[in-house]
Amino acid sequence: MAWKESRSETPLPVEELRRICGPEHVLTAPEDRLAYSFDASKLSALPEAVVLPANARQISQILGLANRYGFPVYPRGAGSGMVGGAVPDRGGLVLALTRLNRILELDPDDMIAVVEPAVVTGRLQQEAARHGLLYPPDPASLSFSTLGGNVATCAGGPRAVKYGVTRDYVLGLEAVLPTGEVITTGTRTMKGVVGYDLTRLLVGSEGTLGVITRVVLRLVPAPETVRTLAVVFPQIDQASRTVTAVLRARILPTCLELLDQATLEAVEAHVQAGLPVQAHALLILEVDGPEAVVDEQARRIEDICRRMGAQDVETARDPASRERLWAARRAISPALRRIRPGKINEDVTVPRSRIPDLIRFNRELARRHDLIIVSFGHAGDGNIHTNIMVDRSDRHEMARAQQAVEELFREVLRLGGTISGEHGIGIAKSPFFQWEVHPGALDAMVRIKHALDPNNILNPGKMFVPNRAFLEAETGRGKP
Amino acid sequence: MAWKESRSETPLPVEELRRICGPEHVLTAPEDRLAYSFDASKLSALPEAVVLPANARQISQILGLANRYGFPVYPRGAGSGMVGGAVPDRGGLVLALTRLNRILELDPDDMIAVVEPAVVTGRLQQEAARHGLLYPPDPASLSFSTLGGNVATCAGGPRAVKYGVTRDYVLGLEAVLPTGEVITTGTRTMKGVVGYDLTRLLVGSEGTLGVITRVVLRLVPAPETVRTLAVVFPQIDQASRTVTAVLRARILPTCLELLDQATLEAVEAHVQAGLPVQAHALLILEVDGPEAVVDEQARRIEDICRRMGAQDVETARDPASRERLWAARRAISPALRRIRPGKINEDVTVPRSRIPDLIRFNRELARRHDLIIVSFGHAGDGNIHTNIMVDRSDRHEMARAQQAVEELFREVLRLGGTISGEHGIGIAKSPFFQWEVHPGALDAMVRIKHALDPNNILNPGKMFVPNRAFLEAETGRGKP
Repeated sequence: MAWKESRSETPLPVEELRRICGPEHVLTAPEDRLAYSFDASKLSALPEAVVLPANARQISQILGLANRYGFPVYPRGAGSGMVGGAVPDRGGLVLALTRLNRILELDPDDMIAVVEPAVVTGRLQQEAARHGLLYPPDPASLSFSTLGGNVATCAGGPRAVKYGVTRDYVLGLEAVLPTGEVITTGTRTMKGVVGYDLTRLLVGSEGTLGVITRVVLRLVPAPETVRTLAVVFPQIDQASRTVTAVLRARILPTCLELLDQATLEAVEAHVQAGLPVQAHALLILEVDGPEAVVDEQARRIEDICRRMGAQDVETARDPASRERLWAARRAISPALRRIRPGKINEDVTVPRSRIPDLIRFNRELARRHDLIIVSFGHAGDGNIHTNIMVDRSDRHEMARAQQAVEELFREVLRLGGTISGEHGIGIAKSPFFQWEVHPGALDAMVRIKHALDPNNILNPGKMFVPNRAFLEAETGRGKP
Repeated sequence: MAWKESRSETPLPVEELRRICGPEHVLTAPEDRLAYSFDASKLSALPEAVVLPANARQISQILGLANRYGFPVYPRGAGSGMVGGAVPDRGGLVLALTRLNRILELDPDDMIAVVEPAVVTGRLQQEAARHGLLYPPDPASLSFSTLGGNVATCAGGPRAVKYGVTRDYVLGLEAVLPTGEVITTGTRTMKGVVGYDLTRLLVGSEGTLGVITRVVLRLVPAPETVRTLAVVFPQIDQASRTVTAVLRARILPTCLELLDQATLEAVEAHVQAGLPVQAHALLILEVDGPEAVVDEQARRIEDICRRMGAQDVETARDPASRERLWAARRAISPALRRIRPGKINEDVTVPRSRIPDLIRFNRELARRHDLIIVSFGHAGDGNIHTNIMVDRSDRHEMARAQQAVEELFREVLRLGGTISGEHGIGIAKSPFFQWEVHPGALDAMVRIKHALDPNNILNPGKMFVPNRAFLEAETGRGKP
């Protein structure tokens, strides 16, 4: 299918944008444009202007202009995405949802919340907690990432093993389609089967099929209490086999986080928490539920861990000791900076039973390419964040890292996994998209994009368009 | 958008179908065509032929013929659908998936199953149970309906309040698109965000966007044990308020089934189980989990029920007494036949907090139109099956029932609900589709259908095409 190249060729209709949103909500100063040029991927490109609309009606009018004049529009939440999904690589207009930041409803009886897209995830969680409720998805960025962004990328997090991911909590949406129609989708109820599931088509579509302006979210009763266990294993295989053993014992933990030795060393060098750096793996397990159950489950988990060869098990029963155990997990990101100034963080995911294979492969990969590779993450759902530590100014190291990423992706797909469990594709993974997605499925996606965005104005050049030229210019990577 | 009318005008290419599937798998005898002409909605129309392909490749070739010759194709599972979704109302070809009936994989470590579409839901559940696992969706038809049909309609069931519906368990699919491409979608992992969510676009698309040939399903650890409570209330409002009170107490039951007085009377007349026919409501609650928890939860539920005005609480602790409690629930369908020979069963769903409003409305509706209306169902998720009892040969009663259905749908939408929680639209609800679906969303659905099925060969004339003429001819209903 032929694509319309929608790089702006005429200047943006800035005056019309000002009339729609008010002059103070259209930014064109170089410093403002710079502030909206990048996301957490560190990829960047200057937009021609930034607009901060107040509501869906204004967004509809803006998209109307985009179709009329043919400029690209980049919806943006908090800019915390990891793959350049919000980066305006073709210039055009950044559409920042910042002002749509209200929690419109929180209904404890129906256990639903209705929010605008710029509500920060952690804020909804706090609000829900006040009513004895839980909004389970917990991406690491939850204290600054927004629900709109979480929906657009189908954000995950450690709790997914028990609670699932963002799509499992989105009941309905209000969105502005690329052609400007404001639509509502879905229901306010758990069940609802009237028509195609546009709700979940929009979830994870990375801002290419619509601008999300309202989200109906399902909440669940908050668990009574939580127990956290930190378990040290002399061998990493023992740790990964323990993940399966726990699940086989019919215990469904909230989290099952695995840290490999390289991660432990980096963290310990950073925080001196007395971590067992000689150990090959640390497993952090958490169970939630009624008091009686979690104690019993923690005890059974400890038994299983010891049977699998654990050398030390520590159980946190109160918030303070729980906090101390999680501190190590949270220290990973800053700690890694001590190893190398940069990292390439790949959120690959494999079927749980293949985790030992992946960990072994990563170790071998590091050796083969003379790289430091640190593996940690959500072992409960097979989502092992594989971090290749690099100095971006070292051209040779970057080339080896690029080679390693390609081999990693091939191996993950061979193991029946996916190249992205929670970050998405954006620009950063676009050259690899077709490694995973079936050609017929790709064609169906392109046909859907074309049907809903005939002028290709909404976040063009992302996801299934391999954006090699931009990536190479930005990173020296991107040419599989 | 203009629609191609794909009623067969030339005879089907029966010889070519025979070459693809083998002559014994193409049925053209009148009695065979009759057997595939209807579903549980009792709507019916004769297909010109029936084909029973062996695999996705044959289905791809059949759809190739359909596009070439322009005949409609109707995918069919067990024919247990409630809304005519599999009825070949434009003639053409019924594509029966019957031969694709293997459980291909059941992996207890990764907790997934890979099945072909004609596997009966109950069979997978039994197989999963042998490994200590649970496939939670439990439509009432589970002993004969198929997983392919469950996926195509996003089937629900009583356990949805705790466990969700079919879409929450489908991780990936193999499907044949209307244009003949065999595609795979999704992952074998809980997380996966590579590209648009074609998996969930196909779930609930009622056989209009693709023929499902393989399903990757997520399983969960089977609960240790179950407690069932049957609670009698003097007033129905007390029962519906109890639903909210239980959930507010942070107890998430597996099921919360409500039977109103009309239902109780019908069931008692049928089975003489000693049901409290003077009571206005019976609530059946079930909790699952570890032994210690369910006992504690059952005790707390009993307290809540008594505080809300329950006059009798019976708790089943063993399979036999549990079976006895559920017997009343299962006796509903046969029992209703004693009231009137026919029923119009509407699976409307409202936000949980609006159940008392809906029940009151139904009582008033029955009075106003001189009808017997029986309300029961999955109160935990607001899915109240509203059954209007009719004698289909009584033209006056049918006209009053039609009027009542229309008023019911308007009220349900006013209460923030949906006209279908689990049956879908098919033909039976197609005239009402646009009452619920936003015009912009409808347009987006039509554009997606057109993008994936340009010749409109796959299950045409369903869902968003108001099929009034056929419905009127079949039932005397269908003209809002």
